[in-house]
Amino acid sequence: MPRQKLRIIPLGGVGEIGRNMLVLELPDDIIVIDAGLSFPKQEMFGVDLVIPDISYLRERRNKVRGILITHGHEDHTGALPYVLHELKVPVYATRLTLGLVSVKLKESRMKHEAKLREVAPGQTVDLGKFKVQFFSVCHSIPDAAGLIIRTPVGVVVHSGDFKVEYTPVFGHPSEFAKLAELGAQGPLLLLSDSTYADLPGYTPSEKIVGETLDNVLGQAPGRVIVTTFSSLVSRVQQVIDGAARHGRYVSIVGRSMTETVRMARDLGYLQDPQNVLRTLDQIRGLPHEKVALVTTGSQGEPTSALVRIANRDHKQLHIIPGDTVVMSATPVPGNEALVNSTIDSLFRQGAKVLWDRVAMVHVHGHGSQEELKLLMNLVRPQFFVPVHGEYRHLSMHADLARSMGIPDDHIFIIEDGDVLELGPDSGKVVGKATAAPVYVNGVGVRGVRDVVLRDRKQLSQDGIVVVMLAMDKQHGALVGRPDIASRGFVDEQEHENREMLDQARDVVAKALSPDSPGKAEWAYVNARVKEVLARFFYERTRLRPMILPVLVEV
Amino acid sequence: MPRQKLRIIPLGGVGEIGRNMLVLELPDDIIVIDAGLSFPKQEMFGVDLVIPDISYLRERRNKVRGILITHGHEDHTGALPYVLHELKVPVYATRLTLGLVSVKLKESRMKHEAKLREVAPGQTVDLGKFKVQFFSVCHSIPDAAGLIIRTPVGVVVHSGDFKVEYTPVFGHPSEFAKLAELGAQGPLLLLSDSTYADLPGYTPSEKIVGETLDNVLGQAPGRVIVTTFSSLVSRVQQVIDGAARHGRYVSIVGRSMTETVRMARDLGYLQDPQNVLRTLDQIRGLPHEKVALVTTGSQGEPTSALVRIANRDHKQLHIIPGDTVVMSATPVPGNEALVNSTIDSLFRQGAKVLWDRVAMVHVHGHGSQEELKLLMNLVRPQFFVPVHGEYRHLSMHADLARSMGIPDDHIFIIEDGDVLELGPDSGKVVGKATAAPVYVNGVGVRGVRDVVLRDRKQLSQDGIVVVMLAMDKQHGALVGRPDIASRGFVDEQEHENREMLDQARDVVAKALSPDSPGKAEWAYVNARVKEVLARFFYERTRLRPMILPVLVEV
Repeated sequence: MPRQKLRIIPLGGVGEIGRNMLVLELPDDIIVIDAGLSFPKQEMFGVDLVIPDISYLRERRNKVRGILITHGHEDHTGALPYVLHELKVPVYATRLTLGLVSVKLKESRMKHEAKLREVAPGQTVDLGKFKVQFFSVCHSIPDAAGLIIRTPVGVVVHSGDFKVEYTPVFGHPSEFAKLAELGAQGPLLLLSDSTYADLPGYTPSEKIVGETLDNVLGQAPGRVIVTTFSSLVSRVQQVIDGAARHGRYVSIVGRSMTETVRMARDLGYLQDPQNVLRTLDQIRGLPHEKVALVTTGSQGEPTSALVRIANRDHKQLHIIPGDTVVMSATPVPGNEALVNSTIDSLFRQGAKVLWDRVAMVHVHGHGSQEELKLLMNLVRPQFFVPVHGEYRHLSMHADLARSMGIPDDHIFIIEDGDVLELGPDSGKVVGKATAAPVYVNGVGVRGVRDVVLRDRKQLSQDGIVVVMLAMDKQHGALVGRPDIASRGFVDEQEHENREMLDQARDVVAKALSPDSPGKAEWAYVNARVKEVLARFFYERTRLRPMILPVLVEV
Repeated sequence: MPRQKLRIIPLGGVGEIGRNMLVLELPDDIIVIDAGLSFPKQEMFGVDLVIPDISYLRERRNKVRGILITHGHEDHTGALPYVLHELKVPVYATRLTLGLVSVKLKESRMKHEAKLREVAPGQTVDLGKFKVQFFSVCHSIPDAAGLIIRTPVGVVVHSGDFKVEYTPVFGHPSEFAKLAELGAQGPLLLLSDSTYADLPGYTPSEKIVGETLDNVLGQAPGRVIVTTFSSLVSRVQQVIDGAARHGRYVSIVGRSMTETVRMARDLGYLQDPQNVLRTLDQIRGLPHEKVALVTTGSQGEPTSALVRIANRDHKQLHIIPGDTVVMSATPVPGNEALVNSTIDSLFRQGAKVLWDRVAMVHVHGHGSQEELKLLMNLVRPQFFVPVHGEYRHLSMHADLARSMGIPDDHIFIIEDGDVLELGPDSGKVVGKATAAPVYVNGVGVRGVRDVVLRDRKQLSQDGIVVVMLAMDKQHGALVGRPDIASRGFVDEQEHENREMLDQARDVVAKALSPDSPGKAEWAYVNARVKEVLARFFYERTRLRPMILPVLVEV
């Protein structure tokens, strides 16, 4: 690649662009921003999680100088165990982020070999010809960072995931003054978070949720159960503060929430000055109005504490009429049904439930349109590339940039794998890197291919019918009556269905009878059985089960 | 049942209570309100639709006097072909509703035998000891009705699906004066729509959407494509009106939308005074700013016209940069991902898209809390039963009733199958009717049982492994090496996976080798093969495919 060019390549993610991983490349150096995972979509049957395809990095592994993590959320850190397995490069992040990364690497037994480097906001790291300075931004997890990246081509600003917050629960407001100074120097490029580029106005402050929580903790007649994301440390802080004000003790329920809280306290990101945190055992016997519980389960995850409580499945806790449950989160798209049925179960057992449709119990961590415009106005970049969003978000973010006066040919909407090459005065997409998301299912990085998913989809719809044929090895003739077994197709307890499956055996036998041609060839037999049975079953049931003929030669 | 009692029994629906079907029973007579279907939830693999279980009616078929349909939406009419197949009773509905029902019954070839009875609002039908009067309500389809049901026990008011609308696009405002008069007589029971009982305030008027559409039709630089539910006739009317005002011609795209529009025009529910409706052929060649298209696809349905257009899959239409697409609907829960990816595809092709998050392009057809309170205030019932909603909606609607002064023991939250028995002064749940939703999959009312769905779920996760064993009939001994076929499990193009499956054959052979005990019994062989393979595959892959041993006796 030419000396005075910078390449920008988003990799990975399901639908979302550049959030899980973004690559910046100079002729001799590569830096990687974030290494996160996505959760599978509905049609990705059986897939546990989705990670970026790092073929592009693998082929240039000697150039990769390091991985910069902007904050500690899964969609920015979750692929690290997989990526570090192949690329033994240092990981740079702020303190809490690195704490969360350590926990994750320890679970994957990779902590001892990982090179983790703590970076304070304001500090600069030299990575080949890249000089990267971290700066504080506000997001729904403390210690989130944006990046100022100095390159021979010009200065790149990466927003990270951010919102504008002048009164954060923990830490500093976003460092706008620094960006304004930088803006005066004419930076080359702004890469900016597009998650909520479709929402007009400003995102409300986290303090608003604090007010709701304070009211509930003050006025609820019984126990208050707050459920949120385990990483939302500032929300937990607000519960602790509110509980302390209103004479309640707080107990953390659930393994992941307990671990995060312990780590955040150890690193100083969570304070309990009035010492209200208690174990579940310690709060047993307290009057209900003295108790608050914090738990995960805000997404209706079947194994979470809240869902087990809602389903009367939890060993230590169940709902007592008079409990107030605060769902302090918004369902991630796709989780709506699980969340709703959890709320229904809680109501059925006599709880009062507050969720995002009925009360101000959650604000998200991404800027709305006015905040995105503020950032552009401060940075005044020559080029603009929206990242962290699905196509419609990038498209609307690009519209915002146009409305702010950035010329059309200085705005690039790129998708995963697009190789954008930027010079001091112009840019264009020069190629396509391998970037199909990698499906993780089962052990290791054993990718699941589309053919496997297609089979699973067909199996999930109308099940499978296995046809067993015994073939005389010597004469190539069918021996005995074909047998049939089915799973997930029709209810075999019903007489008419059993009868149909029995008739199907005759249908096969007839199709393969001696007067049918070419009987000896397995390819022919296989195709013929599939054809006649598919037609027979479709006519009878309008279903299309997978048909699997199997041969035993005797 | 006692002479002075009225039974209320909600039947069917997935999660929602009393919307698909509600039964009212007196000692000698039964009436059925609505006969709708639900769409399956994600975990109902392969299920096409869900209908109510009518066992309760089947067992009392001689008492059933008729089915009353409140309006023409699928969730109130869609089960009619199934129900009328068993219960040959008359169906009562208003004109447009009956028109839609006719179309549906014609598709199922049941129209000739169905007894369809048109009822005008205000008209009363005698059904045994029930006297039922229809009254107009506003909803997102014209000709929607509520019911005033006079019984020996007292008067029952059923709201139907309703919102308060003083300026409907078609038809009359809801008939509140009639209800107020009735309220003065002390009605026994109000059954009221709870769909949006969780939303504070008032639902905006359909006119608001008209203003947005008018702006878009007036100002869009190119074609305007409006997508909505095919039953939302008033939305189509607003497009026709706006288009006429701004000199555009309107073409209806897609089969179901075209049919509904034709029927609504024939029955006088849709007007085109300026004659702007055109076929697709007729608008070809018109300047883009003279064209508006109306199509289905607002839910991202894969076979809908809009989705095919978005995917460049439509024969006659594709997106031209400059097109404006208005998604005039809200995604039904569960459809969000499909809708979003449709919007993304439209943006990718250069369309501007307006959807519910970014513009006022849709209002729904159900009352919010203040409207629900208005209805209670007018009717002033002695007893209150919230219907048409999931549990949380019923629960919040019950809270509203309490806040309006209805005593706690006069409010009943009942679920599907609950038999509520109401006397003049008190009520209680006296039993449980069979009411598990019936899954329709394939032809007829062939129910799918849970065991089939459980199998499909397992198949969808990790696929299936079929193990073929040939057994010597005489000696009960294994003949040859076991064979294995898999589908949806692992990628068999990968060498290591093929090797694993090959090793699995040896694992089976070893487990069944002569020195293993009890080899001759199939139940033992079957269990043993499952056990050893499950362990082998889980250790290797952390996956749990379904294992299906099949035997060929030779």
